[in-house]
Formats: sequence, structure tokens, C-alpha cells
Amino acid sequence: MTIDQPVLSADSLHLWLQDLLTKLGVPVPHAGIVADSLVDAELCGLPSHGLSRVGIYVKRLKLGLVDADIRLRTIRETESTLLLDAQNGFGQVAMAEAADMAMKKASLSGVCAVAVRNSTHFGRAGYFAEAAARQGFVAITTTNSAARMAPWGSAEAMFGTNPLAIGIPCEPWPFLLDMSTSVAALGKIVIAAKAGKAIPEGWALDREGRPTTDAQAALDGTLLPVGGPKGSGLALALDILSGVLSGAGFGKGVGSLYRDFTRPEGCGHFMIVLNVAAFMPVELFRKCVAGYAAQIRAAKPAASDRPVILPGELEQQYKAQSLENGIALPAEVYRELLELSLLHDVTFPTGRSPEHPNG
Amino acid sequence: MTIDQPVLSADSLHLWLQDLLTKLGVPVPHAGIVADSLVDAELCGLPSHGLSRVGIYVKRLKLGLVDADIRLRTIRETESTLLLDAQNGFGQVAMAEAADMAMKKASLSGVCAVAVRNSTHFGRAGYFAEAAARQGFVAITTTNSAARMAPWGSAEAMFGTNPLAIGIPCEPWPFLLDMSTSVAALGKIVIAAKAGKAIPEGWALDREGRPTTDAQAALDGTLLPVGGPKGSGLALALDILSGVLSGAGFGKGVGSLYRDFTRPEGCGHFMIVLNVAAFMPVELFRKCVAGYAAQIRAAKPAASDRPVILPGELEQQYKAQSLENGIALPAEVYRELLELSLLHDVTFPTGRSPEHPNG
Repeated sequence: MTIDQPVLSADSLHLWLQDLLTKLGVPVPHAGIVADSLVDAELCGLPSHGLSRVGIYVKRLKLGLVDADIRLRTIRETESTLLLDAQNGFGQVAMAEAADMAMKKASLSGVCAVAVRNSTHFGRAGYFAEAAARQGFVAITTTNSAARMAPWGSAEAMFGTNPLAIGIPCEPWPFLLDMSTSVAALGKIVIAAKAGKAIPEGWALDREGRPTTDAQAALDGTLLPVGGPKGSGLALALDILSGVLSGAGFGKGVGSLYRDFTRPEGCGHFMIVLNVAAFMPVELFRKCVAGYAAQIRAAKPAASDRPVILPGELEQQYKAQSLENGIALPAEVYRELLELSLLHDVTFPTGRSPEHPNG
Repeated sequence: MTIDQPVLSADSLHLWLQDLLTKLGVPVPHAGIVADSLVDAELCGLPSHGLSRVGIYVKRLKLGLVDADIRLRTIRETESTLLLDAQNGFGQVAMAEAADMAMKKASLSGVCAVAVRNSTHFGRAGYFAEAAARQGFVAITTTNSAARMAPWGSAEAMFGTNPLAIGIPCEPWPFLLDMSTSVAALGKIVIAAKAGKAIPEGWALDREGRPTTDAQAALDGTLLPVGGPKGSGLALALDILSGVLSGAGFGKGVGSLYRDFTRPEGCGHFMIVLNVAAFMPVELFRKCVAGYAAQIRAAKPAASDRPVILPGELEQQYKAQSLENGIALPAEVYRELLELSLLHDVTFPTGRSPEHPNG
């Protein structure tokens, strides 16, 4: 962050992105959903899923690889399942609407599984699982993505680092596990490659299937699954749920967000929402989970200076701070958003100067 | 295996175990379910979940810590959810019946989630997921178990190495991921400790929370979760689904199968079954998954002499062989089963002599 880069409020960034997308033909409510998803990731301290994505979203929108104005289509439904077609719109718009439809069904029948085809990058899987958990549902969310990971024992990228998110009602905020099925996130390797730095052993294989600590060789090769055959099998299962069951692309059939400008991504999403009230009163459940969470936090730490935390807790703590103090974007993202603003005649928020520690 | 230890057929072992359990008051159909679960694990080459469990099952049955003759009780149900009480019977009996009830509901409504409370060790999670997958359902199965694993960053065992099994219809056999959430299975550490051998780094912490390669120190300490915070968060989420949502014990509240003879285990199970037909014809889905599986098998191997395999495939190959050639039990298990047979006046199968490679 340079000294003259302002700190921005979440609200101003949200409005800005909503304006930008609206200028590109996205209906206001849909633009608002995409903006909320990306700004929320920034608030949570997860810039890899935040406004760094705006550039590629705009590029694909202008290339006609994402459709600005879509209406989600229901292909099939039962009392507790939904098969939806995202019509090649924004993944966030499809998943948010799919989750709402699923929660309605689960409220009546107890549980609902929804599969979405013909979709695009939907941002952070945990965003949807957390939103459902706040409404009293246990939610499991996943998506597939372009092939970057080799099946265990292979040297050929066959599926994405497909994430698994599980949201569970809890106090003061939901329990939220949001994990990729690779050892390390792709973004970390990209950053290391840019800086010419080595990556730890165990993150990736080179093109020939040999372990590598060379970040660029890793990007040309494949990412390693977490826990070897476990992460590999899990990524594949999540691909089958998101891609095969939904009728979307799967495996190498999913187009790359960043590398393939000849076709839409054609990815799929999958979500299960479970109405806690079908098992016990939601408030009782929330309190039980919170009680269990308190036990976990009080567990004897392995290192006395580092407290034990729960999945999703760091992000909630970060969010509370950034809601108060504002968002400081990475310098290159800030520059990119300024350029986009100029190009599309949207006013970028001015924010306020960052506070100096000794100011 | 000693030279005079016979090779036994799956059928004869099944009948033997059914007889033994029946003598101890278990109704024949229930005894058959338990026998099928344990013998199937032997067939699949997974002796840790096979007949090595008979001894402890019989011990707990005779101590009154497992109830021999139970009837599963439905606590709550909706069109697509079930909350069941296993009445402290065999976990296998409860889960098999719960899965049948869930598949019936899912056939009508599309999906069903079932939670089971007041249960006991149910064997291998994959057994139930595979059975459902063979019947055209996608199944996700889990259970909780006694605390052996510390939350990431902690040195105190707070939850079990709770497994996640995902079964998916495929040809020629189901796709079956069946993973514990620890780096290494407890059984491997027990074997190393007995042999006085060291364990690899990264498997466990000692009682003080320090990494250890001493197998006995590991048994006195805690197992490490796969992928650090990922496996830790997943184990906790699975405990909440199996234990909290079901109203079973959870965390330290689950009794240990092997260490605690003062109380029932009180564990819980959780399963989601998804009717594939609600999304696409089952036969089409099975063929699509099989086609994808073929692509995975054909992926470039990292080492040219080791083919790429799918989750569950080794076990199916092993099963085909052991169905033909019979089961050779580990020597100490063989001796234990002979003793149980004498004690309870059940005839142990004689089998046939193992074949000698040069015979």
C-alpha cells in the first residue's frame, strides 16, 4: 500500500462495483449480489476472492463469455431437489438465488439439494454457506472449476481445487469451514512466482509429475491435493456433484476463468441445505454448537501464546475490524479498479487517508 | 499367518459370526447385518474394520454396554428428514435400517437426511455409502467417535477421527471415498507401538502438544488432522452433524469403544442420500461417472509403473480376489475368534489349507 492510497468503506466499494456492473448491462439487483460477494471477501481478509476478480469479470462480460442479464431456469424439481440452469450468468447470482429457493423447500420438507449447471465463477463458496447458516440452516456448498489438480498418483491436471464449505448456525457467528481440496491455494503460488520465490515442498508437481519448489514450474504443472488420496478423492466427488449430476461441464470440460477466452466456463455448483428445525429447535441447536465451540476454544493450546480458534473465526474477527476501519486494497488491485473506473466512466470512491501509526 | 491357519470363505465367517451373536441374544437379522459389515471389510482388505472388532463387540455386549435386541425408534420425521434413536444397539443395525428408511424417503421426495442418536460403533462408514450407491443413490455418511484428535493448534483430544464416506453410482462398481479426518489411521499407530517402531513425522503430537515420532507417545497424545486446519474443521463439522444435530454425545461426551467400560458409547451417525433420478436418469448418470472414471484412470501417471486409481478401487479389486481365494485372518484375530468359539460353543469354520506358492 502506498501512502496516498485511501482506505475505503465497504459501502462505497459496494456501490461503486454495483454501478460499474450496471453500466455493463447487469440488472441492479444482480450487480448488488456480485458486489456483496466480492466486498464481503475483502472485509473478511480474503483478497484472493475479493475485488481482484473485478478485472476478469469485466473482461469476460465484455467478451460475451458471461451473460449480463439472465433469468435462472428451473429444469427439474421435486419436493426437496432443484436442478437449475444459470444461463451463463454470474455464478454468484445463480447460487444466491438457488440457495434462496433451496431454503424455501427445506423449510417445508426438511432438506433440499440443488444442482446448478451452465454457470460461471461464483466467488467464495463459504459466502453462501455462511448466509444460509445465519438463517438457521446447515449448508454444504461446493462448485467445480477448471482443471489445475492431478488425481493422486497422476501428473495431469484433471479437475479443479474444488472447495468444500460447511456452514453451521452458532453464536456469535456461524461455524464456517471453507476449504479448497488442494494443499495450498493457487493464489499463493501465483504470488510466489511473481516474486521469484520458492514454494514449500508438497504444494505442487512440475509438468513431468516431479515434486517442485519452483513456483513457475508449479504453475506449469499441477497442484497437489490435501492429504494425498483424500483431497484427490474429495475434489473428484465434489466435481461429480457439481458437474456431472447438474449436467454442467466437469473435469477438463470446465473452461478456465483466466486462461480460456474461447468459451464460457460452463461450470456447475451444488448445495445441500438442511432445516435444523426438522431435528431440534434452531435456538437450542445454535446454543449447543456455541457451547461446543467454547469447549474447543478452551482446549489446551499446543503453543501457549496461540489460542485455539474455530473455522471461520479469523475471518469474522477481521471483518469486524475492517467494517470499522475500512478496506485497504492491494496496490495493484487499487490501480486496476481506478483504470476500470476511468474506462467506464464510474466514480471511484475517494475514501480517507490511511491512519499513520504515529500520526 | 502360520502354516496351519486355514483360509476361510466369507460365507462361513458370516454364518459363524451370525451364530455367535445370536447366542448372545442378538436377533438373527441384526446379527446378519453386523456379520455382513465386518466380513465385507475383511473381503475388501480392511482388517482394521473387520473381524478384529468381534472381541470388543462381544465384550461390550456381555457387559450390558450394548443392547442385543433393539428396535430403532423414530423421534421426528418430515418428508425428507429422519431423527432416529438407535436404543444403544449395534451401530450397524441402526445405520443399515436408517439408510433403508432414508432411501425410501429420498425415492419419493428427492433427498433425505437422517441423524441417529444413542448409538454405538457402526464399523466402516463406506459400507453404508457403497450400499446406497449400488441402489442408485449418492450417499454421504459419517459418524462421530471418541475423542482422539486435537483441534488444530491444540494439544487436547476433543473429537474423533470422524470419517467421511461418499458413495456415487458408477460402473463396474461404485465410486467410494472413505476417509478418516486424521493424517493416519489410529490402527497404524497401534501396530507401530506394538512393534516398538517409530511413526513418520506429522502423524501425531505427544501429551504436551509436541510433534512426536514415538508411537507410544502418540497413543498417549493426540492424532493430527489431515491438512491441519482443514481436517480439524471437517472432523468438527462431522461431529456436529453426527452428535449435536442428532442429540447424541459429541466431543468428549462420546464414550470410547476400547477404553471406557463404565458407560455406553452414546455416539451418533449422519447420512444424506440423494436420489439421482431427481436430476437425471440413474443409468445415464452411472455411465457419465464411469466415463469420467475412465478419463481419470487414463491420466498420465506420475510414476510410469503405477497406474492411477479411483477411490474405492483397490478395495473392490481385493474383494474380487478374496471372494475367490478366501480370507486369511491375521494370526492374533484367528486365535481370538477360536477362543470366542470355544467359550460360546459355536463351531468355527475349518476352511482349507492355504495354498503354497510352490505346492
